[in-house]
Amino acid sequence: MEKKSLGVVKTQYFTFANPPDELKLESGARLGPVTIAYETYGELNKEKTNAVLILHALSGDAHVAGFHEGEKDPGWWDSMVGPEKAFDTNKYFVICSNILGGCAGSTGPSSINPRTNKTYCLDFPIVSIGDMVECQKRLIEYLGIKKLLTVVGGSMGGMQALAWLVKYPNKIHSAIPIATAMRHSPQQIAFDEVGRQAIMADPCWKDGDYYGGAHPAKGLAVARMIGHITYMSDASMADKFGRQKKKDSEQFKFTADFEVEGYLRYRGDNFVKRFDANSYLYITKAMDNFDATRSKPLQEVWKGLKVKVLVIAFKSDWLYPAYQSKEIIKACKFAGLEASYCEIDSTYGHDAFLLEFEEETHLVKHFLKKVFSVSQNEAKL
Amino acid sequence: MEKKSLGVVKTQYFTFANPPDELKLESGARLGPVTIAYETYGELNKEKTNAVLILHALSGDAHVAGFHEGEKDPGWWDSMVGPEKAFDTNKYFVICSNILGGCAGSTGPSSINPRTNKTYCLDFPIVSIGDMVECQKRLIEYLGIKKLLTVVGGSMGGMQALAWLVKYPNKIHSAIPIATAMRHSPQQIAFDEVGRQAIMADPCWKDGDYYGGAHPAKGLAVARMIGHITYMSDASMADKFGRQKKKDSEQFKFTADFEVEGYLRYRGDNFVKRFDANSYLYITKAMDNFDATRSKPLQEVWKGLKVKVLVIAFKSDWLYPAYQSKEIIKACKFAGLEASYCEIDSTYGHDAFLLEFEEETHLVKHFLKKVFSVSQNEAKL
Repeated sequence: MEKKSLGVVKTQYFTFANPPDELKLESGARLGPVTIAYETYGELNKEKTNAVLILHALSGDAHVAGFHEGEKDPGWWDSMVGPEKAFDTNKYFVICSNILGGCAGSTGPSSINPRTNKTYCLDFPIVSIGDMVECQKRLIEYLGIKKLLTVVGGSMGGMQALAWLVKYPNKIHSAIPIATAMRHSPQQIAFDEVGRQAIMADPCWKDGDYYGGAHPAKGLAVARMIGHITYMSDASMADKFGRQKKKDSEQFKFTADFEVEGYLRYRGDNFVKRFDANSYLYITKAMDNFDATRSKPLQEVWKGLKVKVLVIAFKSDWLYPAYQSKEIIKACKFAGLEASYCEIDSTYGHDAFLLEFEEETHLVKHFLKKVFSVSQNEAKL
Repeated sequence: MEKKSLGVVKTQYFTFANPPDELKLESGARLGPVTIAYETYGELNKEKTNAVLILHALSGDAHVAGFHEGEKDPGWWDSMVGPEKAFDTNKYFVICSNILGGCAGSTGPSSINPRTNKTYCLDFPIVSIGDMVECQKRLIEYLGIKKLLTVVGGSMGGMQALAWLVKYPNKIHSAIPIATAMRHSPQQIAFDEVGRQAIMADPCWKDGDYYGGAHPAKGLAVARMIGHITYMSDASMADKFGRQKKKDSEQFKFTADFEVEGYLRYRGDNFVKRFDANSYLYITKAMDNFDATRSKPLQEVWKGLKVKVLVIAFKSDWLYPAYQSKEIIKACKFAGLEASYCEIDSTYGHDAFLLEFEEETHLVKHFLKKVFSVSQNEAKL
């Protein structure tokens, strides 16, 4: 059954400026004004109790679903968001905002620094996953929402969901961290670091001060190619490409002979058209620095919380292996939270969180229905 | 018990020039003169029946064991080669040569092209694993050896062992392919390709024509860093680094904060001092193009061979996963070869083939003793 699309949607902007509305970052630095790009779908009910916040991954943006005017590709999670879909816009008011530090409308290193009237470049302060969540909280308050039905995201989106659980557990009824970790392993840090090195090795990077001229496109493309390998699985690559040689293989010795090489180059080259290299540095650093546990074990941080949690992992995901999701669910259970865990049997690797929407839909739909019904009863008390 | 070292060893050179000694490559191209750097340890017996050929991996060289004059680090497999070690130089005559296309004494893209008196650069022809084996065969003949006791190597060295089995099965009594594959999966090709892209993205690469000036050091370092991540395992990185921060972390925003980052940068920077970027391109391409099966299944190619095979894999090796070694052993068994398989329970990932020398020593010592004894009896018949 073909589900309906949201049709044409538009990005909106929310700016908070001037102290005391200035953002105090977890590092202690201050930042302002801050603009947050966001999209909403569906209708906020009168009681403002049907809002869902979607949290995007490294290369995502606020455009989750529907189509931007004149574009032929829908948002990045259109399979999950829309009428009758997992996040049913006939029932729920769905919000997604571009993260702080990003390059798709929200304030980041490519924005203008009002103190100098020049692009921030590396003057942009180091931001954290917690800082991203802080901006989301301000957006939610601005929209008049006191408590979210759920916060949900995969990969770095899942880290934000965990940060919501740590920072603002009283502002959410539930959380759905997908294919994520409470902190990066050294292997995850290492992959990010090689991507950063590839960008910084590009002479066009110029210590981050490249906005007037050529961008470090080659370095960023290499970073993205590394990323893509880690998003797929050995099995999914074997299925998709095998050892097929490209038909249009040129005569140059080190051309892309194999289909898989051509695919990676294509994805790398496409990425640089829409993504900012400095944002890549800042965001991956935020992921590497993230540690939900910080000063004490999560089971102590989360003790007694009334937040319901659904943790989802994927069998072939070797970038965010299932054992990391099991650490999260273990902390939930030890803290006494109502939490469930599902490991989906997919061969898609880390990309599964974007692709296995049928299984995810079953899991999310029932979970959200229950959360909504309990939350409405609570509201009546 | 501390085993003895070989002491000081020396690299030797063997050159074959002029037709008909010119090398006809598998691509059809011709190459000459070709110099092969090699080292030997132990004594060749009078009957010339105690020779073992060791085959090195991507970044290896002819210097397997002992010390070069004035150097404090021994060869790359010193733990396995020497008096009383797995390849016991009191019993066996051990040979290792630098591969064709390499940059440690053998002819490669950084050699002088005698037709132009300039460095080959990208005029160097594409070489194959089979071409490397062809050079090794000429070296063996030059040393007066008719049949090798064994050919042994890990990773790309294992591919060469398989190529010996395909091309010259009558010239070997046995083969020991370790942590290898009969052909690269698309994931393995993809990792190589990103490394090549990183090198070619470096403006110092200049289409391979950089020998007069600065080498593409940053690109090669990034390629090596990617390699290092794939050589280790998630578990071994967690053991070695955890999330330890570096003590001497500078104030620069994107400095190496974590130990793992510092380690990767160090390994990357060190590698460029000893390795040629063009060789990296040619050698990884040879690995990606390698397919032991080629026209027909290996079990048919190998049918009825009298070569004994010992296949070794490592549990945590995700770059050359054990299933690839199982494909090799399966082909051996289907072809009716006397073959055994051992999967060593190591957490070191692909690096295990260099590090798990105790387990490897047990396996190799018994295997080689048996091969030697059977081969001596055969010789008497």
